[in-house]
Amino acid sequence: MSLVVVGSVAYDGVETPHGKVDRMLGGAATYIGVAAAYFAPVKIVAVVGDDFAGEDLDFLHSRGMDLAGMERVPGGKTFFWQGVYSADMNDRATLRTDLNVFADFNPRLPEAYRSAPYLFLGNIQPALQKSVRAQMPRVKLTGGDTMNYWIQDFRGQLLDTLKEWDFLLINDGEARQLSGESNLRRAAAKILEMGPHTLVIKRGEYGAVLFRQGCHFMAPGYLLEDVFDPTGAGDSFAGGFIGYLAGRGVDPRDGAVDFAELRRAVIYGSVMGSFCCEQFGVDRFRTLTREEIEARYKEFQSCTAF
Amino acid sequence: MSLVVVGSVAYDGVETPHGKVDRMLGGAATYIGVAAAYFAPVKIVAVVGDDFAGEDLDFLHSRGMDLAGMERVPGGKTFFWQGVYSADMNDRATLRTDLNVFADFNPRLPEAYRSAPYLFLGNIQPALQKSVRAQMPRVKLTGGDTMNYWIQDFRGQLLDTLKEWDFLLINDGEARQLSGESNLRRAAAKILEMGPHTLVIKRGEYGAVLFRQGCHFMAPGYLLEDVFDPTGAGDSFAGGFIGYLAGRGVDPRDGAVDFAELRRAVIYGSVMGSFCCEQFGVDRFRTLTREEIEARYKEFQSCTAF
Repeated sequence: MSLVVVGSVAYDGVETPHGKVDRMLGGAATYIGVAAAYFAPVKIVAVVGDDFAGEDLDFLHSRGMDLAGMERVPGGKTFFWQGVYSADMNDRATLRTDLNVFADFNPRLPEAYRSAPYLFLGNIQPALQKSVRAQMPRVKLTGGDTMNYWIQDFRGQLLDTLKEWDFLLINDGEARQLSGESNLRRAAAKILEMGPHTLVIKRGEYGAVLFRQGCHFMAPGYLLEDVFDPTGAGDSFAGGFIGYLAGRGVDPRDGAVDFAELRRAVIYGSVMGSFCCEQFGVDRFRTLTREEIEARYKEFQSCTAF
Repeated sequence: MSLVVVGSVAYDGVETPHGKVDRMLGGAATYIGVAAAYFAPVKIVAVVGDDFAGEDLDFLHSRGMDLAGMERVPGGKTFFWQGVYSADMNDRATLRTDLNVFADFNPRLPEAYRSAPYLFLGNIQPALQKSVRAQMPRVKLTGGDTMNYWIQDFRGQLLDTLKEWDFLLINDGEARQLSGESNLRRAAAKILEMGPHTLVIKRGEYGAVLFRQGCHFMAPGYLLEDVFDPTGAGDSFAGGFIGYLAGRGVDPRDGAVDFAELRRAVIYGSVMGSFCCEQFGVDRFRTLTREEIEARYKEFQSCTAF
């Protein structure tokens, strides 16, 4: 069933120990959408400038995505981010952030989007996330991401927004900041009192932990032989997670969401995040097949079962 | 079947955010032995001074350990280490290291030890590890630990020693240093060419990875609600790992060691490491029961299966 993905579509300039790319397709909604589209039909809500390249539009179209909600601002420029990774690629420094048309992003959903049952709110201002949710009165499952800036400076707005979500998907640093607890289990317990019944905490190369009231699931990170470019890995994880749930038609209104399905969704998230790192930007997704995804899922099983 | 454990028996002074202990029983052989003794009979090879307290001797005896190989040097003082942990307990600074009698440690095995089938060589000078191995001509399974100092300054000696081991159990930083590879899979591949057919890389709170030629197993770290004192957690992991294998009578001379048994050994290692952190020093092991160990093993299963 179809999934609405809201967030940035951008150009990135990235330098890793493996090389440098001055300008490549990026943005949270891009990675989330591209990863999710392997599992379910995706409808993108985003904004770009008229510098957005035809070949990038073609690529997004080629994934079967609905781009009716991707606004193109005449005379505007697309969000641009530039960063450089440390030698071990566990840290990165932002060299430049030009919000451009993204600064005035005010998502308005096309009519055809409003009845979609699944919604993933990428990392944008919490009030905008809330306004998107309000445009989808029949949504079944809502989840999203946020970041340190909103947690720190828009806390009230964020808490008000979170209350309506089924799941929150953030990294460990954000979970600690949001909860004020350094211990992950305690952090999770506090966050689960903020509204979402499900919390996924991403831990980069170390995997992810899924928390619900009274139970949790730990997924180790896939051990890649080569991490080429980690840009977008967390968003690809999110895309795999929500895409799997949308593809399966998981419906929390039927009662509790099946914990076994959520576990599988976390593994599909890990699988998509791992593929993302294998080439620059979205390049790995240009050739990735569903068969390769299933093979890696099985590899995860065989590397973790005991 | 019985297991010989060689290494330090020491006193530690430790400060964590939860408190401070000026002097408590510690040392690698202590933690390894105490953890392993839940699974198999343990024979300790170590050296202490005549300041070694009767109550600590009683505690080690109470675990059913054979202490015939624990030399007591008249007039000598027991190895003392003092350290302080960072607020998140992921780092620690050494404040003081008094090797004392440990500086002249030259392990000589009692006759009754020499026919034991299992051997774990704690982190001591590689030439001494080799000499212990040579005193056990009928040993079935040999493994051990090392550290940055030996890798850096005694590399030739270490490589000569490693050749005779079945497994090496080190942390991720040591694996990177030993192999010269920052990527864990590449590091493992290089180390497996140095002799051991099995490599266990500990990643602290993030769990551990077991490597053999062409396959690996990933275990996430147990999520504790309170990490009280991480001192000895890595050694307790080692004790659970080798203790489980010794208790099961795993014999690599029968052919390849069963990978499923090694996986279970890694989980028992993780279980023992997690318990260790729950109280200061060895205190958690004063009350820990085999039933609690089995319950946590099952919890690991339920938190990782998908």
